[in-house]
Amino acid sequence: MKIVVDSMGGDQGVKEVVQGSIAAANELGVEIVLVGKKDIIEYELDKNNYHGNKIEILHADEVIQNDESPSIAIRKKKNSSMVVGLNSLKEGVGDAFISAGNTGSLLAGGIFLVKRIEGIERAAIVSLYPTKSGVSILLDAGANVDSKPEYLEQFAIMGSVYCEKVLGIASPKVGLINVGTEKEKGNILVKEAYSLLESANINFYGNIEARDIPEGVVDVMVCDGFVGNVILKLTEGLGQSIFSALKEEITKNFSSESSTLFLKPEFEAFKQRFDYREYGGAPLLGLKKPVIKAHGSSDALAFKNAIKQAKIMVEEDVIDKIELDINIVK
Amino acid sequence: MKIVVDSMGGDQGVKEVVQGSIAAANELGVEIVLVGKKDIIEYELDKNNYHGNKIEILHADEVIQNDESPSIAIRKKKNSSMVVGLNSLKEGVGDAFISAGNTGSLLAGGIFLVKRIEGIERAAIVSLYPTKSGVSILLDAGANVDSKPEYLEQFAIMGSVYCEKVLGIASPKVGLINVGTEKEKGNILVKEAYSLLESANINFYGNIEARDIPEGVVDVMVCDGFVGNVILKLTEGLGQSIFSALKEEITKNFSSESSTLFLKPEFEAFKQRFDYREYGGAPLLGLKKPVIKAHGSSDALAFKNAIKQAKIMVEEDVIDKIELDINIVK
Repeated sequence: MKIVVDSMGGDQGVKEVVQGSIAAANELGVEIVLVGKKDIIEYELDKNNYHGNKIEILHADEVIQNDESPSIAIRKKKNSSMVVGLNSLKEGVGDAFISAGNTGSLLAGGIFLVKRIEGIERAAIVSLYPTKSGVSILLDAGANVDSKPEYLEQFAIMGSVYCEKVLGIASPKVGLINVGTEKEKGNILVKEAYSLLESANINFYGNIEARDIPEGVVDVMVCDGFVGNVILKLTEGLGQSIFSALKEEITKNFSSESSTLFLKPEFEAFKQRFDYREYGGAPLLGLKKPVIKAHGSSDALAFKNAIKQAKIMVEEDVIDKIELDINIVK
Repeated sequence: MKIVVDSMGGDQGVKEVVQGSIAAANELGVEIVLVGKKDIIEYELDKNNYHGNKIEILHADEVIQNDESPSIAIRKKKNSSMVVGLNSLKEGVGDAFISAGNTGSLLAGGIFLVKRIEGIERAAIVSLYPTKSGVSILLDAGANVDSKPEYLEQFAIMGSVYCEKVLGIASPKVGLINVGTEKEKGNILVKEAYSLLESANINFYGNIEARDIPEGVVDVMVCDGFVGNVILKLTEGLGQSIFSALKEEITKNFSSESSTLFLKPEFEAFKQRFDYREYGGAPLLGLKKPVIKAHGSSDALAFKNAIKQAKIMVEEDVIDKIELDINIVK
């Protein structure tokens, strides 16, 4: 098995990508194709004393920046690490592609180059959401901000397959994010989606309210991309804000910095629960090959875990299973 | 000035309503009309040794329950405390109405009995959102789950008036909740709303992302009711979940209950910042008279603060100002 990794996309530089890839090659038994500027990648491999035969380099001159228009960048920058990587995936050089680069470009490139699975109307971004009871997945996390009920139905099916195959949850519970739990609640979109989900071949739990998200009452949370994006960003913002407010209170009342030091291990253990690096990246589901968006600030550990996640997606034939389940429905 | 208060709607019983009303009558110099079962209200007034002349009782036999269909309940239960209260407001018996009862019924009753201001397309629920820098308001918090761009424009105008007149913020900053800060981001609804807000007579800040909500970057946050409801419920759920996770970590590592006791004042001070009781209730804006939805579990303090809020709305002529600003726009 060969995983193609975009070496240029992360905020933390090539170093972290290379270190994560070395760890993955050594520990997971996968081969890695590092796409990007050859001399920089060679330099980093050397610095880390890697002389094995499980990592190869695919040279790409350009880099897509975060402020570029996604679809224009994909069309114009044919020598960018992202486009070269996606094309190598398409041509069968590797089995999966990982990039920490611009989400919009990766999505546009995935749809344009790797293409959608037959029968899939829209690709979705899947976010792994840490909960009280473990981890749930949420989709769509922002790819489709004007969804139709049929998209939500497909998100539910794709999410179920991912959850079962990659997270190992048998018959995962699928919930529809809504303003109330009763069937008749919601806007036009979710009301129509509810009927579709009821008759889909999934373990449909019903509606869930946003207050239940952190509890992990379901395994797969389905929503429109606008709502999904709001949920993820609010979770991030509130986590930081509650955390710093509490720290401030404690520091204020103990009137010394020692209190913060004193509580440090507790805060760290707490933060660990919400550490995205442990969960891998965000898969883009609905494409013909596995494509994973790694967090922009991914370090070596995060890249290694994203590679592990890609490996499971390939081993478990997630794409074929999605294609099967989507087309059974029709 | 006379504030009409539904005595029967709260989860904590008539006792808390009566105690809050007595405090308001004594401290704020307002007159109160308590609507509900006369004997129970008299019993509670007696128990609290109230013998003043600032509180009167308006008898109502029935109570609208939380599980009733809002519009049916409003039409059928003509002797309910909510309908009697709203009618008394409409007929000028009082200047504002407060209820901790079912939100849907209060909204339906407000629109059906008190009626919308001329020119207002939809009434909105306003939520007071505690932030790092104080408090912002968010609307719509759930009244309109299928909004049109024009509704969002009116929410922005109504929110600005409320913020300026009741919270005393001069030229309040209005932000549109979106998936990115750039103008061209978003779904069809917010893209069209952006253009309307740009040319509206408000201090338009632009788009804000959900991660910035807890920071309080704007004073008025505008969104569709579906999104607003998700934001509020997720905030509630995450607050509880982060709080209990952190407590668990601390208790676990200090291996004794004394650690929790030890940190109690810090946790309490922290919780205080997010205490809805301090901020009053959720005004329903767009109606011809001030109507405030008090939190279902309001205690005496929360009722007193909701009455204070109603008093300011009346004193500052919030309704007239909204009518003026909405109709200038056209």
